[in-house]
Amino acid sequence: MADQRKAALQYARTNREDFLRVYEEILSIPSISTDPEHTADIQRAAEWMAAQLRALGMQQVQLFPTPTNHPVVYGEWLGTAGAPTVLIYGHYDVQPVDPLDLWKTGPFEPTIVGDNIFARGTSDMKGQALITLKAVEALVETGGLPVNVKWLFEGEEEIGSPSLDEFIARHKDLLACDFAVNPDSGMIGEEYPTITYALRGLAYFEVRVYGPAHDLHSGMYGGVVHNPANALAELIAGMHDEQGRVTLPGFYDKVRRLSKEEREEIARLPTDEAHFLAQTGAPALYGEAGYTVAERAGARPTLDVNGLLSGFTGPGSKTVIPAWAMAKISTRLVPDQDPQEVHQQLLRYLETHAPKDIRWEVDELAGGTASISDRDNPGVQAMAQAMETVWGRKPYFKREGGSIPVVAQMQDLLGVESVIAGFGLPDDNVHAPNEKQHLPSWYRGIDAYIHFFLNLKP
Amino acid sequence: MADQRKAALQYARTNREDFLRVYEEILSIPSISTDPEHTADIQRAAEWMAAQLRALGMQQVQLFPTPTNHPVVYGEWLGTAGAPTVLIYGHYDVQPVDPLDLWKTGPFEPTIVGDNIFARGTSDMKGQALITLKAVEALVETGGLPVNVKWLFEGEEEIGSPSLDEFIARHKDLLACDFAVNPDSGMIGEEYPTITYALRGLAYFEVRVYGPAHDLHSGMYGGVVHNPANALAELIAGMHDEQGRVTLPGFYDKVRRLSKEEREEIARLPTDEAHFLAQTGAPALYGEAGYTVAERAGARPTLDVNGLLSGFTGPGSKTVIPAWAMAKISTRLVPDQDPQEVHQQLLRYLETHAPKDIRWEVDELAGGTASISDRDNPGVQAMAQAMETVWGRKPYFKREGGSIPVVAQMQDLLGVESVIAGFGLPDDNVHAPNEKQHLPSWYRGIDAYIHFFLNLKP
Repeated sequence: MADQRKAALQYARTNREDFLRVYEEILSIPSISTDPEHTADIQRAAEWMAAQLRALGMQQVQLFPTPTNHPVVYGEWLGTAGAPTVLIYGHYDVQPVDPLDLWKTGPFEPTIVGDNIFARGTSDMKGQALITLKAVEALVETGGLPVNVKWLFEGEEEIGSPSLDEFIARHKDLLACDFAVNPDSGMIGEEYPTITYALRGLAYFEVRVYGPAHDLHSGMYGGVVHNPANALAELIAGMHDEQGRVTLPGFYDKVRRLSKEEREEIARLPTDEAHFLAQTGAPALYGEAGYTVAERAGARPTLDVNGLLSGFTGPGSKTVIPAWAMAKISTRLVPDQDPQEVHQQLLRYLETHAPKDIRWEVDELAGGTASISDRDNPGVQAMAQAMETVWGRKPYFKREGGSIPVVAQMQDLLGVESVIAGFGLPDDNVHAPNEKQHLPSWYRGIDAYIHFFLNLKP
Repeated sequence: MADQRKAALQYARTNREDFLRVYEEILSIPSISTDPEHTADIQRAAEWMAAQLRALGMQQVQLFPTPTNHPVVYGEWLGTAGAPTVLIYGHYDVQPVDPLDLWKTGPFEPTIVGDNIFARGTSDMKGQALITLKAVEALVETGGLPVNVKWLFEGEEEIGSPSLDEFIARHKDLLACDFAVNPDSGMIGEEYPTITYALRGLAYFEVRVYGPAHDLHSGMYGGVVHNPANALAELIAGMHDEQGRVTLPGFYDKVRRLSKEEREEIARLPTDEAHFLAQTGAPALYGEAGYTVAERAGARPTLDVNGLLSGFTGPGSKTVIPAWAMAKISTRLVPDQDPQEVHQQLLRYLETHAPKDIRWEVDELAGGTASISDRDNPGVQAMAQAMETVWGRKPYFKREGGSIPVVAQMQDLLGVESVIAGFGLPDDNVHAPNEKQHLPSWYRGIDAYIHFFLNLKP
């Protein structure tokens, strides 16, 4: 096995340029899942993933249709008797690219500048999915896989995975495994290998406020009606108190308290205020009183406006009282909050606070529960050891602010933990213009996954 | 003169179909002043107005260039010795047409349905300007004008008339007159002829709030920074108190109090709560405590959001903390508020209330002072008599909520009062989709202006 380790790492090193070409291939497919215009690209990306699995010698490779027409790609190799079975998760869809004019290079024209490759999906998460494919390739090409693997690539993660819950529930036998790995994650910094052990959940809403039956002249009707844009602003403003706490009724009732031990561990992370100031470029930080910024970023729930639209937004002035105003509003949740309960809390907040002179509607657009994993499972141990081998230092254990609903779904439906280990960086501009992946970290990630699979060999 | 009155009214009646064709001609020119793409249409509309003046036998007809490339159209006829000189004001530009998908017919394809003609500018104010042109035509064709007239048509009213102040100041002699008439106004209802004697002013701003240097992932950074969309909502919410009063510091300091007599007069207007509920279609009315809705609509200052934009506003969900948020915010002013002082009040409000974790900018986009006219001047008396002749009832005297900055400019720079009398209706959808003009009121308006000019004959 020492020989395969050496050979596989050598294979990965020798084939870096080829790996990059394959990376660029998948980055060139604009698989934006929220936009119906890209349905064909979603299909193309799914077929591309399936072809990769076939080329690795995987069996049962197939596309499972979903109600959203974003197929689930599955493949497996179960030929290593007596070894554990690892379910590898990934998603081949990406976020939208607007505002397009802020991209320095085309979002689907991968461009290497220095150590980074720029394109939508480089970091989140086509690049991370490829790390697992290329680590397996290195092992397959140098003696074979030391473990059994199953793959599950979905195409609707960026729209809240509306079909995945149902898919997992229906295919429990097919997906049965010892644990899952999920590389849809990142590191604290390029020299700080990171294993994420907790993820926030999500409840995402669109709130629409309606006032007059049609746009009105602000001169003729200013002073007569409650302007829905003003009313929406008032409702949003009331969603936080002066301590930066969310005011939805009951919002904190089920929030699991941070233990003293966990707060001490979080305090050891290098993600201090200076780190977050540098990452965000904000004039100053902000958040819930009584918690450090690292706690607020991963272990406390939040509420953010993701979009606002009302009235006249073009150049110049138009003296209109708009007929309606819209806000996209999402909450990040921690254990043991429930997205459905948060939906009810938002409705109760609006029932209580919305004035009678406007009408309102709420749509729930996406949701997922938070999760916490057991840090002692053998998968986590194998990954921790792999990272220490590659970076020469023990990994950091982190609670992540983002949401990976599939981790909670796999806990609930398959009864398995996920090893959450990816190789993005905080400044990758995920969900933003000029998304990138740091290539040296990408190559190290491939090495780490080679070690990880070999470490799992019984 | 009795003969000319009869002949001119008969001419107007006989030529209704021809008048309509001319009306449709000018409505077909998309002279949107706020949109640089329509610069050529602005020029076309200006030349069309000049051609109309030439056809009426006006002299000195010319286009005066302006810094905005929206020419002022001038023409005059001064041949009636001993008669008063009336300066007729109008504007040939129109508001933008978005949201375009709410228009039932093309905004620049005039369409007659029943008693109404639909197109952008039908009511505000190409239709009103044509009323004056066609009334003068009827008099010219039936014995000649009984008074002297000067015309001033501008092409930038809907963008706040940035050049007009300067133009009037530079051409005081050219524009010298006994009083002005301004038909950029409307009636309370089709059976309620209305003379407007006071107008609100305007101060229109764009407020931009900046937070992080770029869009952030709301999972990774939620709880870390002050979301600029939330911060903007908080600032907007704070601009009104619970009594519906505007909180900009000093906002009410210079507001002229309503006299008991004026409040009694306003109370006699037929514009009650039921009227405004019907006109707006809002679920309930709203406004400053302590004032009736008719007072709030015309005689009290207001603040409204005219537009909101931030983050992701497309279909579906995008989990982004936006880098910036924008609001268009305008105030309607009453005597003796000053738009420049209101600008300073907004800056002071933001300096006091904006948190240090965001940056903000304010641009002033448009402004104009409020005005009140003397109801005893001979022009107003001639118009009141004309309306009584056509409608069989005395006109209502009204304080109008909208702004016509040129009325204040003519008071300040030329020392003249304006007779504000137009024939739009409250449900004309001005500044909104499906703008229309009620054609029976349009024909009555032409008759009223024929009487008005004849009533002025010494």
